[in-house]
Amino acid sequence: MTVPRYRLDIEYDGTAYAGWQRQADQHSVQAAIEQAIFDFSGETVTIRGAGRTYAGVHATGQVAHCDLEKAWPANTVANALNAHLAQAGERVGVLAASVVDENFDARFSATARHYLYRIVNRRAPLALDFNRAWRVVRPLDAAVMHEAAQLLLGRHDFSTFRSAHCQASSPVRTLARLDVTRMGDLIEIRTSARSFLHNQVRSMVGSLKQVGEGKWSPADLRAALDARDRAVCGQVAPPDGHYLPRVAYAGI
Amino acid sequence: MTVPRYRLDIEYDGTAYAGWQRQADQHSVQAAIEQAIFDFSGETVTIRGAGRTYAGVHATGQVAHCDLEKAWPANTVANALNAHLAQAGERVGVLAASVVDENFDARFSATARHYLYRIVNRRAPLALDFNRAWRVVRPLDAAVMHEAAQLLLGRHDFSTFRSAHCQASSPVRTLARLDVTRMGDLIEIRTSARSFLHNQVRSMVGSLKQVGEGKWSPADLRAALDARDRAVCGQVAPPDGHYLPRVAYAGI
Repeated sequence: MTVPRYRLDIEYDGTAYAGWQRQADQHSVQAAIEQAIFDFSGETVTIRGAGRTYAGVHATGQVAHCDLEKAWPANTVANALNAHLAQAGERVGVLAASVVDENFDARFSATARHYLYRIVNRRAPLALDFNRAWRVVRPLDAAVMHEAAQLLLGRHDFSTFRSAHCQASSPVRTLARLDVTRMGDLIEIRTSARSFLHNQVRSMVGSLKQVGEGKWSPADLRAALDARDRAVCGQVAPPDGHYLPRVAYAGI
Repeated sequence: MTVPRYRLDIEYDGTAYAGWQRQADQHSVQAAIEQAIFDFSGETVTIRGAGRTYAGVHATGQVAHCDLEKAWPANTVANALNAHLAQAGERVGVLAASVVDENFDARFSATARHYLYRIVNRRAPLALDFNRAWRVVRPLDAAVMHEAAQLLLGRHDFSTFRSAHCQASSPVRTLARLDVTRMGDLIEIRTSARSFLHNQVRSMVGSLKQVGEGKWSPADLRAALDARDRAVCGQVAPPDGHYLPRVAYAGI
């Protein structure tokens, strides 16, 4: 008989963390949760997350899985982890825990990642959105940003929007959604794909900003994609405005 | 000739402050702005705010006014204050500055204060909304909270919902709006009046929570109002979820 596998739905404020992934010398969200699992169960486990968010990136819907030797009611797992996370002063919460099939893999079973990027388009520095959004002073035309964004949809070689640190074997990805909307000073960019390259979202956002400022036309953005050349990418947007709100799985 | 008067529209994260009002031994939003005015202009002034928010209460639309001996373009005032506030590490931003008539008084000219209170209704501790919302674990019925809230509208003696520290000469206020809406886990309570008593919003929110939990019926809430007795008030809601989004003025 196999040991029970748990799915964890997770929220965190990425400001205080060097990213999702465990690292030798810096604090990570993964290490915070693994420590809480140990504090609760005495078991030393490795959890796997659906999206390896980078330093300063936030999540309201990260998903991870882990196996525990002992079977606990899922609610007990969530409540115990939250108690230990809170006690440790972590800015991480387990929104839900559930027992899943042994074939469920938070990373490899995911059928889509949905990301959100928040820009606050104003001159005044951010008070409540400090570390939670990218402040852009120059007025942005969100409608033309949205128009340009549609030219990136579909299956392409995204080398232009790929970090030099990217370890993916192929630069080809299929972009399913890239929507830009404005509500007052807030510009929200929502994007979806089965998977993204390293820094792809923030690279696309930085180039969309060039379009919003009028420095690039939509055709210039498409030409940057077609160039398949990292050197023509616009500024990479900072992590502050980047959120992982949802990971999708087949049938869920 | 009179000196120019400036209106300042202000945002702040109240977490780090002992409230709006200047105090001898604790840091306040008022003191942070007065310091920035001094750093920029060399003038020592007292600013007056429309709403004297308490420790931990946030604002996205606080309004204040001040007089400066020297006339500056309003944009210069906003930009200079923001630069000095940011340099001092304050979580305060000046959204706008404008030159106003000498009769404008941020506090006494206000025709309405609009407040927002945010409850996150879930078991998991708050990560991104830490210090930004009140987490209530027990499921709340927002529809019945809204129904009950309507029984507080109009002109009443609000002694039940008034702090013992309240210095207002009369406990009578006219409540123009008290709406409760739910979107997923988030419950937003929006309330408006010409003015409120000390802790009136948080006292009403705490009592509405009793209704949402099913401990009180809407009639119980109305009976609490009619009792005009502080002792029957429910728990006072914490400051974390309390925001001042807007102050209204005649013709504005």
